[in-house]
Amino acid sequence: MLDSLLSPKSVAVIGASRTPGKVGHDILANLISGGFAGPIVPVNPSADEVLGLQCYPTLQQYGKEVELSVIVVPRNHVESAVRDSLDAGCGAIIVISAGFKETGEEGAALEKKIASLCKSRNVRMLGPNCLGLINTETKLNASFAGLMPGSGGVAVISQSGALCTAILDQAGARRMGLSKVISIGNKADLSEVDLLRTLAHDEQTKVIAGYLEDISSGDNFVKAAEEASSFKPVVILKSGTTVAGLRAAASHTGVLAGVDTAYGAAFKRSGVIRADTFQELFDFVTAFSMQPLPKGKRVLIITNAGGPGTMVADAVEKAGLEVTSLNRAIAATLREKLPSAASTGNPIDVLGDADPERYVAAIEAALNDDEVDAIIVILTPQAMTRPAETARAIASKLNRQKPVLASFMGGKGVMPGRAELGEAGLPEYDSPERAVEALKAMYEYASWKQRPPRVVTRFPVNRRRAERIITRHQRTGRLHLGEVKAKSILDAYGFRIPEGKLASSADEAIEIAKRVGFPAAMKIVSPDIVHKTDLGGVQLNLASAGKVRDAYDLMMLRIREKAPDARIEGVYVEKMVDTGLEVIIGMSRDPQFGPMLMFGLGGIFVEVMKDVTFHLAPITSEEAVQMLLATRSYEILKGKRGQKGVDLEAIANGLQRISQLTTDFPEIQELDINPFIVGEIGGAAVVADARMTLRPLSA
Amino acid sequence: MLDSLLSPKSVAVIGASRTPGKVGHDILANLISGGFAGPIVPVNPSADEVLGLQCYPTLQQYGKEVELSVIVVPRNHVESAVRDSLDAGCGAIIVISAGFKETGEEGAALEKKIASLCKSRNVRMLGPNCLGLINTETKLNASFAGLMPGSGGVAVISQSGALCTAILDQAGARRMGLSKVISIGNKADLSEVDLLRTLAHDEQTKVIAGYLEDISSGDNFVKAAEEASSFKPVVILKSGTTVAGLRAAASHTGVLAGVDTAYGAAFKRSGVIRADTFQELFDFVTAFSMQPLPKGKRVLIITNAGGPGTMVADAVEKAGLEVTSLNRAIAATLREKLPSAASTGNPIDVLGDADPERYVAAIEAALNDDEVDAIIVILTPQAMTRPAETARAIASKLNRQKPVLASFMGGKGVMPGRAELGEAGLPEYDSPERAVEALKAMYEYASWKQRPPRVVTRFPVNRRRAERIITRHQRTGRLHLGEVKAKSILDAYGFRIPEGKLASSADEAIEIAKRVGFPAAMKIVSPDIVHKTDLGGVQLNLASAGKVRDAYDLMMLRIREKAPDARIEGVYVEKMVDTGLEVIIGMSRDPQFGPMLMFGLGGIFVEVMKDVTFHLAPITSEEAVQMLLATRSYEILKGKRGQKGVDLEAIANGLQRISQLTTDFPEIQELDINPFIVGEIGGAAVVADARMTLRPLSA
Repeated sequence: MLDSLLSPKSVAVIGASRTPGKVGHDILANLISGGFAGPIVPVNPSADEVLGLQCYPTLQQYGKEVELSVIVVPRNHVESAVRDSLDAGCGAIIVISAGFKETGEEGAALEKKIASLCKSRNVRMLGPNCLGLINTETKLNASFAGLMPGSGGVAVISQSGALCTAILDQAGARRMGLSKVISIGNKADLSEVDLLRTLAHDEQTKVIAGYLEDISSGDNFVKAAEEASSFKPVVILKSGTTVAGLRAAASHTGVLAGVDTAYGAAFKRSGVIRADTFQELFDFVTAFSMQPLPKGKRVLIITNAGGPGTMVADAVEKAGLEVTSLNRAIAATLREKLPSAASTGNPIDVLGDADPERYVAAIEAALNDDEVDAIIVILTPQAMTRPAETARAIASKLNRQKPVLASFMGGKGVMPGRAELGEAGLPEYDSPERAVEALKAMYEYASWKQRPPRVVTRFPVNRRRAERIITRHQRTGRLHLGEVKAKSILDAYGFRIPEGKLASSADEAIEIAKRVGFPAAMKIVSPDIVHKTDLGGVQLNLASAGKVRDAYDLMMLRIREKAPDARIEGVYVEKMVDTGLEVIIGMSRDPQFGPMLMFGLGGIFVEVMKDVTFHLAPITSEEAVQMLLATRSYEILKGKRGQKGVDLEAIANGLQRISQLTTDFPEIQELDINPFIVGEIGGAAVVADARMTLRPLSA
Repeated sequence: MLDSLLSPKSVAVIGASRTPGKVGHDILANLISGGFAGPIVPVNPSADEVLGLQCYPTLQQYGKEVELSVIVVPRNHVESAVRDSLDAGCGAIIVISAGFKETGEEGAALEKKIASLCKSRNVRMLGPNCLGLINTETKLNASFAGLMPGSGGVAVISQSGALCTAILDQAGARRMGLSKVISIGNKADLSEVDLLRTLAHDEQTKVIAGYLEDISSGDNFVKAAEEASSFKPVVILKSGTTVAGLRAAASHTGVLAGVDTAYGAAFKRSGVIRADTFQELFDFVTAFSMQPLPKGKRVLIITNAGGPGTMVADAVEKAGLEVTSLNRAIAATLREKLPSAASTGNPIDVLGDADPERYVAAIEAALNDDEVDAIIVILTPQAMTRPAETARAIASKLNRQKPVLASFMGGKGVMPGRAELGEAGLPEYDSPERAVEALKAMYEYASWKQRPPRVVTRFPVNRRRAERIITRHQRTGRLHLGEVKAKSILDAYGFRIPEGKLASSADEAIEIAKRVGFPAAMKIVSPDIVHKTDLGGVQLNLASAGKVRDAYDLMMLRIREKAPDARIEGVYVEKMVDTGLEVIIGMSRDPQFGPMLMFGLGGIFVEVMKDVTFHLAPITSEEAVQMLLATRSYEILKGKRGQKGVDLEAIANGLQRISQLTTDFPEIQELDINPFIVGEIGGAAVVADARMTLRPLSA
C-alpha cells in the first residue's frame, strides 16, 4: 500500500530552487545526498539546471513517467503544480507548501480543492503544510526534516513538523534506528489512519511511533490502530486538548467523560501504548524496538549497590509488576560464583566491587530461569567498576528470550558503558525508574496481545419499539427523554423496569398502585421539569391508597406553586424498587470515538470521588467486567468483610445492553441509568431512574 | 561547626599505600591532586615515603598537630588507628574502612566501641564504611569517590557510597557545581542530622541534596531539616522501605499509616523537597541551584511550535500551577515585534522560523510582566532555528527576578543550545514536562517558606485525670483501652462525650437512661470483646424504659451464647448522639517520627477509598484545616449542591486536641476516634466511639 508514496521509483521536486536555505533547494539536496537511486527531476520554469540536474519548466515536459511528485511552490501555484503532477501520471503527491487550512477559510477551501483534485484521479496526497517523508530502506529523503537518519525498525508519524524534527534529532541521540519518517501536516487526504494501515504491514517497521494533535476519524483510527497493534507496538504521544475539552453535557456520564478520557479509552481498546511525555515516547519506543516482550510480570533486578536496588524494587511494585527471586536451584548455583557477601535474592546484589564476570553470572542465571520474565540491570560507578566491559559482557549473553533493560547511573564515568549498551541493542536509561516504566508498557502491550478474542454478545431485543420512540421524539424536537420514555426504550432492550403507568388523576394513581402493589412510588412527568425532587415531584414508599391520594394532591399543589407554567403529562406510579446497591451506568457519545460507556458506584462515588471507568462501545462481557474491576470501589461491589457482594454479572449485562442500544441508535447522544439498583447474585437489577438525550434531526 | 572535619588545616591518611588501586593510595592521591594547601601526612609503618611525601609509622610520631585523620586500615587495625589519631590531637576522624555494622554483630560492637572512643574525647567521626568527603572550597578531596568535581553551590550528603559516586558522576554531566560531598556511611557518630545543621549555615552551600536509606532520629531530623529548609532548599531522594513497611497495627490509623506516609509527613512538615527518582533529584537540584524561586504559580510558556506548547500547558495545569497570559499592554507591545501569525497568548508562539530576536522579545515581555511568576522556554529544532544563539540571547536577558526553565527538544541538533543554557545557569531538560515538575517543586518550596509562623494552640485540659487512667492501665498491663476508658481520657482533653454511665443490671441501665434522656444507646464493656457489634453487644436508639430492659437482657443472652468466657464489666448506657457526618480522626505513633495524626471521612471513604491525610503532631490550627482540605472528600465536608456543610472548625479542633494529648503522653501508641460525629457549624462534635492502645511499661 502507498508504494508510490513510500517507495517510488522516481521523484520530482516541483519548485526546486538554486538558493540554499530555501525549502525547494533543501529538499532536492536531501534527495540527492540521501542516495536515492532512481531519477530525480527538478521542476522550475526559471532554471535550466538545479544542483547539477536538468530542470524542466513543467513536469509534463519531462516527458517520462514520474512516480512521486513533491510540491514546494508558493501556495498560489500549488493547484497548478498538482494538476501538472496528475497530468504527468504521478502515483502520489506530497504538498510541502504551507498556507492552507492552518491560515483560515481561504486556505481551507484551496486545500479541499487540491485534495478532491487528487481524489478524482485516485492519487493519494500527503500534506499540505508538512515536512515530507523519509524512507531509510530506499534511501528516499523527500523532506526538509534533516539529513538521512540511521536506519532501523522504528517508523515515525508526526502531525507536527516541529516535533518531527525534534524526534529525528533525539532519535539520533538515543540510537533509535528509523524505517520511515512521515510528516502528515494538515492531513487533507492521507492521515494517521492510512499510515497505520500501511505501516502495519511494512516489513522494515517493527515499532510505530506517533505524535498526534487530533485524530481525523475516531472509528477508523480505532480499527486501524487495533490492526496495527496486533502486528507491532504502536506508541503514541498525544498532545492535550485542554480548550477543546470544555464541552457542554447534560448527563453525569457526559460531564465526567472528557475528551482525554475518550482518547484514553480508544487507545486502550486498540492496544495503543500511550506515552505521556516526550521522554516516555523515546523510553518506550527504544525498549520495544530493542527487546522482546515479557511473557509475564516477574521482574528480576541485578545491581551492584543496595540502595538503588531497593529504589527499583519499589518502582516495580508501584508499577503493578512483581519483584521476583531466582529459582532455588539456580540461585544456589549462582551463589557459588559470587562472594559470600553478595545477595542472590531479589535484588541480586553483586556488590560494589563487582567485575563484569559477576554481572555475567547473574544475568545468565536470570536468563536461564523460567520463573523470571524480565531483567533490569543497575550499575553504579564505584572504584572497581568497569562500565564498558560490563556492558559488553552483559550484551554478549542476551538471547532475546526475555527483555533486559539497563540503567547505568551516573555521567561521564558510565558513559562508555551506556554507549556499549546502546550499540548492543540494550535499552538504557539515566534513571532506573524509567526502565521500570518502559517495562510496564511492554508488559501491558504483551497482555493486550494475549487478550481473548473479542466476542460481542447480541441480545434479542425489541429494536422496532425503541426506534419508534426515538423517531417520534426526534421528529417533534423533544430531544430530552425523561424517565418514562427512557424506561420504555430500556424495557425494549431487556432491562427490568419497575411495573408502572402514567396516571392523570388521584383515583387513577390509586388504581395503578393497587395493581402494581404497595408500597408505590410516584413521580411527576413533565418535559419542563428536570429536577423533579427539588420541586416535590417525587414521593416514595407510599404504603396505602390513602397515602397515594395525599401524595398526588400534595404534588399537584407544590407544582402549581413552584412551577405554574410547567406542562404536566401526568404522574407516573410504579412499584417501589427493592433496596440494593445503587450504581450508575451510562453512555456519552464522543464526537470522535462514538459511544463511550461509563460505570460508577452511585451517589458520592461518582459525584465527589469521580470513581468511574469508561469503555468504548461495543463492549464484550469480559470488558464489561473489567470496567467494574477498574474502579476503586470494586471492593464494595464484591462485598467486603463477609458481606454479600452484588450481582456483578447483572451490571456487566446492563453495560452490554446499553452498548447494543447505543450502537444500534447513533441518534442517542447521552444516556444515564441512575440509579441502576443491583441486588445480590441471582436477584434482578432494576432501572430506578433513567434519562436520554437525542441528537437533533438536522445533525 | 564541624570545621575540623570539613575545613581542616592539615590531613593525615592512616593506611596510606603505595599500591595504585588500593583505597589507601587513591585517597592520598586524591588529596594531593585535589590541590589541598595544608600539610598532608601519610601514616604507614612499612613505608618511608608514599607518593613523594614522608611517611610515619604512627601519627603521634609525626610530632606536629594534625586536624583531620582519614583512616583506611583493615578493620582490625581501625581501633588502634583511632586511638593514635585521638592521642595525636586530631579534631575530627573519617573512618573509610568497611567491615562494621554492615557485616553483623561483631562488626557492630567494634563500631560502637570506636564511636564511643571518639565521643569520650569529644571528637566527631564520619563513617565507618564510607567514601570520605570532598570540600571544593578548600580543595579538600579526602575521598575515593572520584576526582575533584566542579565547584558550585550544591552540597551532597549520601548514605550510599554507590549513589554518592553516581551523583558525582551525573553532577558533572548536568553542570551541577558542588560545594561539599559527604559520604556518611554507617553513621556511627555523624549523621544526616549533624550535616544538615552544619550545611544550613555553610555559606558556600546554596542547595542541599541528599540520598538517604534511613533516618537515625526522626525528631532530630525534622528539627534539623526544618531549620536547614528555612535557609536553603533541601532535596532528598529517599529509597524505599518496602519490607520494613510491614508493621502490625491495631487501629485504622495504624493500618493506613505506612512508613512511607511517615517520611512523607516528616518531609512535608520540615519543608524538605522530596525527589521520587534519581532523575528528579537532579532535575530539582539544578533548578533550585540555578534559578530564583517563583513568587506565585502563574507560568508563561514561550515556544516555537504549537504542539509542544499545548503539551506543556497541560503539564502545568496537571501540576496544579496556572497557565497565564501576558498583561494586555505588554502583549500589545510584543505583538508589534512578532509576525502577525505569531500568538501572544499563552503559550506565546514565536513560530517555527523564530530567530533569537523573537525569543528575546518574548522573554523580555515575560520578565517585565508582574503578572508572570515563572517562564518555561521551549525550542524545537526547525529549519531556521539557531539553538546556540537563541540560548545565548535568552541567557543574556535573565535578571534573576523570576525563574526561567528551558527545554530544547531534540538531540544533536539542539545540543549546542543546551550546552549554552547550562553554561549560563539556565536549567534545561530533555523533556518539557520535567521542567514543569521542577517548577512545581520550586513553587511548593516557596509556599512552604512563606507559611505563617507555626503557633500550636494549647488547650486547658485535665492532664492529671488522663495520666491517672493511662498509668493505671499500663501498670496492670491492660494496654487496649476500650470505649469507656478512651472516652474518659478524651473527656479530660475537652472532647464532647455523650452523657452516660456503666450499668451492671437492667434496672440500673433504665435509671441511667432516664437520667441522660431517651433515646439511649447501650454497649457491652468487656476487655475480651473488641468487635462489640458482631456479638450483639451494641443496641442503639432505645426509646423507652421497656426497650432498655429488653436490650439489656438480650445482650446478656447473646454474650452468654457467643462469648461465654468474656469478662463483663457492665453495659455502658449513654444518650444517643444526634446524627451528623461521621469522620475518623486518629493517631498512630511512628517509630521514627512520633505521633502521626490522621483524618478521613468515615466508613467507606477510609476503608475502601483510603481517602485519608496525615500530619505529624504537634499540629497548628492551619495545618489541621489543611488536613481536611487535602482529602478528595472535602467537597462533602463543606457541603455540596447547596447543602449545608459541617463544622470544619470542630474537626480541626479535635485534631489539635488529639495532637496535644498524644504529645503529652508518649505512652499512647495508637488512637482512633471513629466515628467522630460532626454537625452543622455551631453544633457540637461528639465522640461516638473511641479506642486507644498504650505501649507496655517496659518499652
